[in-house]
Amino acid sequence: MTRAGKNTTKKIPDIVIQERLPKYLRALSRLQENGAVEGVSSDELAKMLNCSPALIRKDFSYFGRFGKQGRGYDARKLLERLRHILGLERQWNMALVGVGGLGRAILEYKRFINQGFKIVAAFDNDPAKIGKRVAKLTVKGMNQLMEHIQKENIQIGIVAVPPSEAQKVIESLEKAGIKAILNYAPITPRTSSALIMDIDPVLKLQSLSYFLKEMGPPNK
Amino acid sequence: MTRAGKNTTKKIPDIVIQERLPKYLRALSRLQENGAVEGVSSDELAKMLNCSPALIRKDFSYFGRFGKQGRGYDARKLLERLRHILGLERQWNMALVGVGGLGRAILEYKRFINQGFKIVAAFDNDPAKIGKRVAKLTVKGMNQLMEHIQKENIQIGIVAVPPSEAQKVIESLEKAGIKAILNYAPITPRTSSALIMDIDPVLKLQSLSYFLKEMGPPNK
Repeated sequence: MTRAGKNTTKKIPDIVIQERLPKYLRALSRLQENGAVEGVSSDELAKMLNCSPALIRKDFSYFGRFGKQGRGYDARKLLERLRHILGLERQWNMALVGVGGLGRAILEYKRFINQGFKIVAAFDNDPAKIGKRVAKLTVKGMNQLMEHIQKENIQIGIVAVPPSEAQKVIESLEKAGIKAILNYAPITPRTSSALIMDIDPVLKLQSLSYFLKEMGPPNK
Repeated sequence: MTRAGKNTTKKIPDIVIQERLPKYLRALSRLQENGAVEGVSSDELAKMLNCSPALIRKDFSYFGRFGKQGRGYDARKLLERLRHILGLERQWNMALVGVGGLGRAILEYKRFINQGFKIVAAFDNDPAKIGKRVAKLTVKGMNQLMEHIQKENIQIGIVAVPPSEAQKVIESLEKAGIKAILNYAPITPRTSSALIMDIDPVLKLQSLSYFLKEMGPPNK
């Protein structure tokens, strides 16, 4: 993640916010779906998450008291609390830039809206795409970016353009007032004002291949 | 990343392999595409990657000498070296499990094959999908998993099934001899023998929403 400006989170390590709290939330949601409501122990969570119970207790301690000593956590209250901390009690509106194969898949990915993240506008610079309907949205030209970001109260940008276009698009989003970007383009963006989180599955495959290679002779 | 077994990488920190080397490779590829061939300095790379030149030099030092003092790195040699370290001089065959919306998008994502990662088989447990052609592959039933993983020399599994199915699928892949898994299902898997890297864009959005919330009043 590329982040400009001051650390607004006091003493909470970035990794707690960027990696662990969302995973705790995900595990708790699963527990709740499966019927658990109270007495969730840090041991139980730790087992689901392949980490130590002490780590979980320490991470929770950044945000005050979460449960009664020895009684475990109340799953529903803990979920509510985590959702509050992560700013998930509201809907966040998002704009997608780049309606190619990847962009279309992102538009159709149901989990975003289910989790409160709604793509309300889609942009492209290809005249052949502008005006077309994709996943219930009409694709708009890049010249309408600023107008729609303000009009539709958009807070998050999603970048799904080719790498050669990505830096320019990120700068346009920033100029339009966007402060948070999910970047699918395989570049490390330079940024002045927005928070950017990158997704590149190829990087993950490349570390897997390193470990496969190191692990010994593959079955070739 | 969930990783079982011994650390086979000696003293190289996991984050160097899992995060930074692939990013160095990506930045160098971009420099090379743009015509740079020699005299790439750690300062230049650092600028592309929003990190310190010292960090880059330290990371490279884990793998021996990379360049001549004061002359910068030879981009092509450095690329070759990084590709060698990461095990990218060969093609890796992959199996996709789960041919829903997400699975189809993964099958059609061109960057995997361009980077030497080829999806050679796709599996699903839905009789309506088995036998159908998707992105030049015929979808196979889960009962054929082991046979094809061995026959088609598959080393990496991609999991794109619903969360309730994911743990079972991961165990089937492990049983079939798979040692490396890219997991798109929103769970933290329990694993006994495989390396698993997770991709969940919702987790990234949730940290973005935290930062947006902390940053001050959103434009609502």
